[in-house]
Amino acid sequence: MSKNLTSRAEDYSKWYNELVVKADLAENSAVRGCMVIKPYGYAIWEKMQAELDRMFKETGHQNAYFPLFVPKSLFEAEEKNAEGFAKECAVVTHYRLESDPENEGKLRVDPNAKLEEELVVRPTSEAIIWNTYKGWIQSYRDLPILVNQWANVVRWEMRTRLFLRTAEFLWQEGHTAHATKEEAIEETQQMNKIYAQFTENFMAIPVVQGVKTESERFAGAVDTYCIEALMQDGKALQAGTSHFLGQNFAEAFDVKFTNKAGKLDYVWATSWGVSTRLMGALIMTHSDDKGLVLPPKLAPYQVVIVPIYKNDEQFDAVRKVADQIINDLKALNIGVKFDGRDTLRPGAKFAQHELQGVPLRIAIGPKDLENGTVELARRDTFTKEIVELDSINNTVVELLGEIQDSLFNKALDFRDSHITEVNDFEEFKKVLETKTGFISAHWDGTSETEQKIKELTKATIRCIPLDGKEEEGVCVYTGKPSKRRVLFAKAY
Amino acid sequence: MSKNLTSRAEDYSKWYNELVVKADLAENSAVRGCMVIKPYGYAIWEKMQAELDRMFKETGHQNAYFPLFVPKSLFEAEEKNAEGFAKECAVVTHYRLESDPENEGKLRVDPNAKLEEELVVRPTSEAIIWNTYKGWIQSYRDLPILVNQWANVVRWEMRTRLFLRTAEFLWQEGHTAHATKEEAIEETQQMNKIYAQFTENFMAIPVVQGVKTESERFAGAVDTYCIEALMQDGKALQAGTSHFLGQNFAEAFDVKFTNKAGKLDYVWATSWGVSTRLMGALIMTHSDDKGLVLPPKLAPYQVVIVPIYKNDEQFDAVRKVADQIINDLKALNIGVKFDGRDTLRPGAKFAQHELQGVPLRIAIGPKDLENGTVELARRDTFTKEIVELDSINNTVVELLGEIQDSLFNKALDFRDSHITEVNDFEEFKKVLETKTGFISAHWDGTSETEQKIKELTKATIRCIPLDGKEEEGVCVYTGKPSKRRVLFAKAY
Repeated sequence: MSKNLTSRAEDYSKWYNELVVKADLAENSAVRGCMVIKPYGYAIWEKMQAELDRMFKETGHQNAYFPLFVPKSLFEAEEKNAEGFAKECAVVTHYRLESDPENEGKLRVDPNAKLEEELVVRPTSEAIIWNTYKGWIQSYRDLPILVNQWANVVRWEMRTRLFLRTAEFLWQEGHTAHATKEEAIEETQQMNKIYAQFTENFMAIPVVQGVKTESERFAGAVDTYCIEALMQDGKALQAGTSHFLGQNFAEAFDVKFTNKAGKLDYVWATSWGVSTRLMGALIMTHSDDKGLVLPPKLAPYQVVIVPIYKNDEQFDAVRKVADQIINDLKALNIGVKFDGRDTLRPGAKFAQHELQGVPLRIAIGPKDLENGTVELARRDTFTKEIVELDSINNTVVELLGEIQDSLFNKALDFRDSHITEVNDFEEFKKVLETKTGFISAHWDGTSETEQKIKELTKATIRCIPLDGKEEEGVCVYTGKPSKRRVLFAKAY
Repeated sequence: MSKNLTSRAEDYSKWYNELVVKADLAENSAVRGCMVIKPYGYAIWEKMQAELDRMFKETGHQNAYFPLFVPKSLFEAEEKNAEGFAKECAVVTHYRLESDPENEGKLRVDPNAKLEEELVVRPTSEAIIWNTYKGWIQSYRDLPILVNQWANVVRWEMRTRLFLRTAEFLWQEGHTAHATKEEAIEETQQMNKIYAQFTENFMAIPVVQGVKTESERFAGAVDTYCIEALMQDGKALQAGTSHFLGQNFAEAFDVKFTNKAGKLDYVWATSWGVSTRLMGALIMTHSDDKGLVLPPKLAPYQVVIVPIYKNDEQFDAVRKVADQIINDLKALNIGVKFDGRDTLRPGAKFAQHELQGVPLRIAIGPKDLENGTVELARRDTFTKEIVELDSINNTVVELLGEIQDSLFNKALDFRDSHITEVNDFEEFKKVLETKTGFISAHWDGTSETEQKIKELTKATIRCIPLDGKEEEGVCVYTGKPSKRRVLFAKAY
C-alpha cells in the first residue's frame, strides 16, 4: 500500500491528500466540502479531546452546549463578527420537505414551511452564547463564567482540503465572561499558553506564541493571540487562537453587570478554539514518505504485535507470548493491538502499520520463541532491535518516551532552522522562494504595507511573537522605523 | 429557591419544567425549540456519555464522524425513512448572507447563493452513513463494521419540552454492517441489552425490554427493539431504541459484498441510539418536590461540604478539616465540592444543593470541630446523622452505594406496582384514568385495533416485552384470539 504514496519531494500537497485517505484518517463525503472522519482518525481526535478537556477543567472551565442555529437577527448583532462570517454561512430557510407533485417519488422543499426568520448554522457561537449570557449575568457575583463547548461548526469555504479547511469541522470553543479587562486579558493569554503546552507536550509540535495583526484578527476581537506551527514544506499553520473580545459582544447583546462598587458596566469577554485542523498540523509535522508518524501520546495504540507463523501450532505459541505482553503493557496504560489477520502476509501488515504510524512494532516468530526474544521496530527511525522478552516492558516504555521527545526535537530543529532574519526586501523574496519557513523582519505597523507584501509575495504576517525583543530597525518594505520584528510566512 | 418549586401533585408537568430550569440543567434558547444545556446539566450528560462510550468500546465499537448535512437526493433514497422524517426537517437552501439593500445595516439571504441541491440537517444518519459504507465494503473481510457517532441531530418538532422533545438534541447513533442476518439481529439485541444495563445499573432506572409494533417502528426498520421506563406520573418514556434494518439501507444505497461463498449479497444493518432525552427520564424517575435527586454514579459531584462559621478563624479551621476529607474522598474517586461562598447562608446553600440533587451533604461547624464529628445528610431520604471524622470515608462510600441501590429499588417497586393486568376494555379505560402506568393486555396484532385504542384512550402499545410468556387470551378491544400480552401506556 505505502508504495503508492506520492513522495513529499514529488508533490507535497498530493502526498498529504493521499496520506489522509490511505492511512484511514478521513475521506471526502457526498456533501461538498464536508469530510467523514474515519475510526482511526477519530481515535486520534478523541485523544486530543481528552487531554484538552482535562487541561480546560483543571483551569476551572466547565462544558455546556448551545444551539446549532443562530437566528439571523442575533447573527448580525455584532457587526464586525457578522461581516466576517456572512459570506460563508449555511442558511436554513425551511423546516419541511414534501413530495414533489411534478416529480413522482421525489421530495422538494415545502413552500408553505418557510421560516419567519432564517437560521444561520453556527460558524462560531459568540452571538448565540452572548445572547444567552445576558440572562445569566446580573452582578459581579455571577462572574467569571468559564465555559467551553465541543461542537461542530460550518463555514462555507469554497476551496476545501481534508482537516485543513472543510465546510463542517469539529472544534471546541471556549467563551468566558469577566468583570474586568485585566482578568479577561489574563484568561486570553492563559488559554493561548495552554494551547502551546498541548501542541508541544502532547502533539510534539513546536509553536510560536504571538499576537495577530489587525488584518488577521478574529472578526469582532480586540486582540487575537495565536500559536503558529511550521509544516515540513515551510508553510506556516495557525494551530489555535485565543481572542480578547473586549466589551464588543456585551455591548452588542446588552450584557451589563453591577460591579463591586455598585455601578453598571459591560462584561468583558474572551473566546478561544482549536479544531480538527490540528489533525492536519499533526500529519504535516511528523509524517514521512512511508506514511503517518504519530507521537505515542496521540496514537490510537502505541504498539502493534505481528505474529510470524507457518501453522496453527506456531500461531498459538506466538499468541500466548503476545497475550502476556499485551496484559503487561495494558497495566502500564499502553495500548497494544494484536494483528492476527490471516488474510495478509507479515510484510503487508508491516507496510500498513507504517502507513498508519503505529509508533512501535513487535514481531514474534518461531525463532524468537526459541530464543526468548522479540523483534522491536521503531516507526519514526525504522531502527530494529532484538529484545529479550524479560525486558520488553521496560524497553517499550523507554522507547515510547524517547520517540515522543525525539519527534518534538526533530520538529523543533526544523522549525528553528527555518526562521530567517531578513532586513532587505530582495532577500525577503529570495528566502520565500528558496528556503521558505518563517521570515523574521521589521514591519512599519500599517495594514497597507502588510497588504502590499502579501500581494507581492503571498506571505502574510503570522504573528508578532510574544517573546520578541524590542529592537530598533526599519520596515523591510517601506524603510519606515520599526521597534520589533514580526514573523512572515506563506500559510495554510 | 426550592420553596418556589411547584409540587408534583399540584402540576407534574409544571414541576418538571420548573425543576429543569431552577436546578440549572437547561433552558430554552432564542432558537425555537432548541435548548441550552447548562454546565450542571451537561456534566450529568458527560457522565452518561463516558459510561456508554466505555460499554460500546468494550463490545468492539469505534467512534467516527459523518457530515451534519444530507443532500436531498440521498435523504430520499430509502423511501420509508425519508417519509418518516421529511415532515420535520431543517433544510439549508443558501450558503451566504449579504447586506440587505432595502434595510440598512441588516443582512439577507443572498439570492445568488442558492445551493444546487438542498441539504437536510441530519434528523438521523442512516442515509449519509450507508452512502459512505458503500465505499468501505467489498468483501465479507470488510465486515462487520461496528461504528458509533456522538452528534447533534435536528427534528423540527412543533411542540417541544426541555430534554424530552427538542428541535436539536444530542445523541449517539450506532450504525453497524454485517454479513449475515443472524449477526445483525444479535447486534441489535446486544445493544438493546446494553442500554437496559446502562439505564438500570448506572441511572437507577428500571426498564422493560421489548419490541415495537409495526406502527411504532423506526422509519426504515424491520424490527425496533426498545427499553421503556415508567415516570412518576404513570406515563411511559421510551429511553432507547435498537433497530434491525434488514437489507433496506443496503438496497437503497446499493451496498453489496462478496460473501464467503463468493456470491454477491446486500449487507445487513443495524442502528441504535440514546439521546439527551435520557436526562428527562432521569429527572422524572427520581426527583421530588424539593428538586432533583441524582443517583451517585451520575452526580457531577457526589458530596458537598458546607462550612458553618461565624468568623474567619472558624472558617479556616473548618476548611482544614474539609480539605482532608476532600483529598481522602478524591483518592476513592468520589467528587466533592466545597461550598465556601460568603454570599449565602448555610440554609440557602442546603436548599440549593437539595434542588440540584447532590447525593450527600456534609456540614461542619465549630461544635463538630470540638467533637471530631461532621453532620452527614442524605438527599434522597433527608436523613441526617452525626459521623465521627475517623469513619467519614467509609460511611460516605457505603452510603453512596446504598443510595444508588435504594433509588433503583424504589423506582422498581413503583414500576412493578404500576403494571396492571387487564382483560376487559372498560377496566382498561378505568385503570388509565385512575392508576395509570403500564397495562398488560392481550391485543389481536393488528394496527387497526392499536390505532382505535389510541384514539379512544390516548394509550399506545409501548412494546411487546421480551420476557413475556405465551398465553392463550383474547384481545382486550376486539375479543379476537391473542397469544401474548403487550404493554399499553400513555407515553411521553
